[in-house]
Amino acid sequence: MQSDNCGPDRPAHPGIFPTGEAGKSDHEPAERSVDFPVSVVLPAGGTGERTGLQTPKQFCSFLGRPLISYTVQTFERLSWIQSIVVVVAKEHMDLMTDIIQRFQHRKVRVVPGGSTRHRSIWNGVLALGGEAEGEAAAGDRPKVVIIHDAVRPFVEEDFLYKITMAAKEQGAAGAIRPLVSTVIATTAEGYLDHSLERAKYRASEMPQGFTYDVIYQAYQRCTESDFEFGTECLHLALQYCGTNAKLIQGPPTLWKVTYKRDLAAAESIIKDALSQSACIITGGSAHAATLAGALQKAAGALDTELEVIPDLMGENASYLLKEWNFIRVSVNCSCLSEVEALLGDLEAADRALLHPVVVIWVHLSCSGESSISGGKVEPDGLMELASAAKLHNILLYGIQLQQSKEIERWERSVLKVMEITSALIRERSPALVGQLLQA
Amino acid sequence: MQSDNCGPDRPAHPGIFPTGEAGKSDHEPAERSVDFPVSVVLPAGGTGERTGLQTPKQFCSFLGRPLISYTVQTFERLSWIQSIVVVVAKEHMDLMTDIIQRFQHRKVRVVPGGSTRHRSIWNGVLALGGEAEGEAAAGDRPKVVIIHDAVRPFVEEDFLYKITMAAKEQGAAGAIRPLVSTVIATTAEGYLDHSLERAKYRASEMPQGFTYDVIYQAYQRCTESDFEFGTECLHLALQYCGTNAKLIQGPPTLWKVTYKRDLAAAESIIKDALSQSACIITGGSAHAATLAGALQKAAGALDTELEVIPDLMGENASYLLKEWNFIRVSVNCSCLSEVEALLGDLEAADRALLHPVVVIWVHLSCSGESSISGGKVEPDGLMELASAAKLHNILLYGIQLQQSKEIERWERSVLKVMEITSALIRERSPALVGQLLQA
Repeated sequence: MQSDNCGPDRPAHPGIFPTGEAGKSDHEPAERSVDFPVSVVLPAGGTGERTGLQTPKQFCSFLGRPLISYTVQTFERLSWIQSIVVVVAKEHMDLMTDIIQRFQHRKVRVVPGGSTRHRSIWNGVLALGGEAEGEAAAGDRPKVVIIHDAVRPFVEEDFLYKITMAAKEQGAAGAIRPLVSTVIATTAEGYLDHSLERAKYRASEMPQGFTYDVIYQAYQRCTESDFEFGTECLHLALQYCGTNAKLIQGPPTLWKVTYKRDLAAAESIIKDALSQSACIITGGSAHAATLAGALQKAAGALDTELEVIPDLMGENASYLLKEWNFIRVSVNCSCLSEVEALLGDLEAADRALLHPVVVIWVHLSCSGESSISGGKVEPDGLMELASAAKLHNILLYGIQLQQSKEIERWERSVLKVMEITSALIRERSPALVGQLLQA
Repeated sequence: MQSDNCGPDRPAHPGIFPTGEAGKSDHEPAERSVDFPVSVVLPAGGTGERTGLQTPKQFCSFLGRPLISYTVQTFERLSWIQSIVVVVAKEHMDLMTDIIQRFQHRKVRVVPGGSTRHRSIWNGVLALGGEAEGEAAAGDRPKVVIIHDAVRPFVEEDFLYKITMAAKEQGAAGAIRPLVSTVIATTAEGYLDHSLERAKYRASEMPQGFTYDVIYQAYQRCTESDFEFGTECLHLALQYCGTNAKLIQGPPTLWKVTYKRDLAAAESIIKDALSQSACIITGGSAHAATLAGALQKAAGALDTELEVIPDLMGENASYLLKEWNFIRVSVNCSCLSEVEALLGDLEAADRALLHPVVVIWVHLSCSGESSISGGKVEPDGLMELASAAKLHNILLYGIQLQQSKEIERWERSVLKVMEITSALIRERSPALVGQLLQA
């Protein structure tokens, strides 16, 4: 909203969140066919030094959920991903296990990390092969292992698919990006030695993919010095298996949460993804439908997607399963039973497990009507309801407006409802729940 | 606020905004002594391709002000910076001139850019020497020229000083950062050729500094091919003047706004910098002072700095000149005259020129008092006042609370005022101005 003259704030990757049980998004093509087993190793042992924060980045929370859970979700929603091994420092094993339980992740195992990045990945690879516990036969091993960073939560299925297929064909594949800055070599005294020709080089990013055999042999054959000082798996595959990795340019969204500013960027991307659409429930009232229509018109100008439905019965119940925010319009009825019913539906559907859902109660007063019995809204009731909903990760806000026969005044009110709604949905501020705002 | 378990959201660079007329911040050491003329060239001709936006990044607005204005302000506030040349594409000359007038930048000249980055910088260097218009004698030329990017708004004085002094001594100096990703060389067919040993290389960043003579000769002597395909000024200084640049590691805040996510990160840093402190004005009331004291206690837990003053008279008028947000407490007085007076003072001081100022009116009802005459607050009056203030870039919000003799209830209300206040100050949402919130 605030980067006002820079076009819509939509993320460049609308598909980062699952929109249904099967993990299929409306906007994505049909699921890719991957007819061999694929597993993921997520090294998550970092200490977060570069963000300057006490909590390692992968455990920093966004809207109440740790970054690592977003990354896990990205893989888990793909039916062709068989299993995910998260490698964490020993002191974070319990924390990670709690996260998996709390956000109901399936497919995930946690294994303890080693003292370096390569040692941690190797532990993960061994766990996939069952060698860590001596439990699995060779037949259970994945054909392809994807190695990714816990702190790169925004990976699109399309790109993962490309890496996976290239890894199967070539033995190894990795994501690359153009260099943002010129790379220079320095002298021991801190002076410029020479600068590299930017076009010949690329930044090596994640994800990378390997056949199980290549990554296994590379780690089996590499030296203690590789384990201690190296970081690049592609390099090991080349040096110890003679496998030249296929390099594929990835989208900018692959970036790694490294510095403190990246936490803000990640939060913004997550908020954008959650703010794209809202569903107006009219309760079948004609007045509410008129307001909903006017809001839809206003939303077009603000680049928000709005759908209007009478209720959540029948087919409309599917809205409860998707990434929608909700606007419940009550006409001349100051009692909160209608919004209470919606909150009940959301809780029953366990919709707010992975991130907070925004519910906005719009109270429309039509003075021409006979039933002004509804009268004044009691703010305390809304606040109480909102406090209870917040415990279920549902953020409830109220807006009241008066219908007007003066067209200009009415349009101003409608626009104001839309602006307030957009701001509330975008910001998801826990501090403002239960407030009854004026349009 | 939302990255809840990751420590305070303070920016790592509190000094990015000027806090007084002379540009001195309370937290910075005394101004550096630079006894030679220093000028700045800001190439700002980029087209913003990589953000995927129509508006080039340097002209994207944050809180109503284009990024380039933040960068200009960073240099302008330093007394030892003599002049700033902004080099923009011809089609943006008028836009840039408007920005300079609107935000009252001094020290700045705008010159048209060339077809490449090097040509644009060269135009800027020529303008500094007076050669573009044949106006200046050699004596007016700066001793040191700092070259920076328009899209790196967060540079600390301390680091600029280091670059400037090293440039004067060595002829050239540049900022470097450790590499975030491994750099790899690719084969023509898109396979891995080899990876570079990360420790031997650095990313070359901005700012860079040169003596006028070095940068002038480097451009005079370089080839058409350099002008066309090169980007690295340090390289030209080495190749054509034999000057090995001194490389100095800069802080992470030097980063360049490149992708769309960087816009979100920049906005967050700017908002953080503006949200660090607020000033509570009690009007001398004992009840207000009690509330203010309780808010200070609550603010400590939320890591916000709060100062309490009775009014803005005498020495306290200096608060109007600094980066403070304001909380005006009115006791039992529902009329808005007290907050109106504050708005008048802020407008008179032209305080909201560079970014929106947040004013929160807290209406405290003390039922034990005799003068409940104040009674109910009229929300319409607050909304009208807020709409008028918004035109002056002042964001006014209201919070009302009831004094209570039940300690627990009172503490809950105070905490709520503080949470709402923090959220309003942090988000600066224009959509919510004029709302009267309940604590």
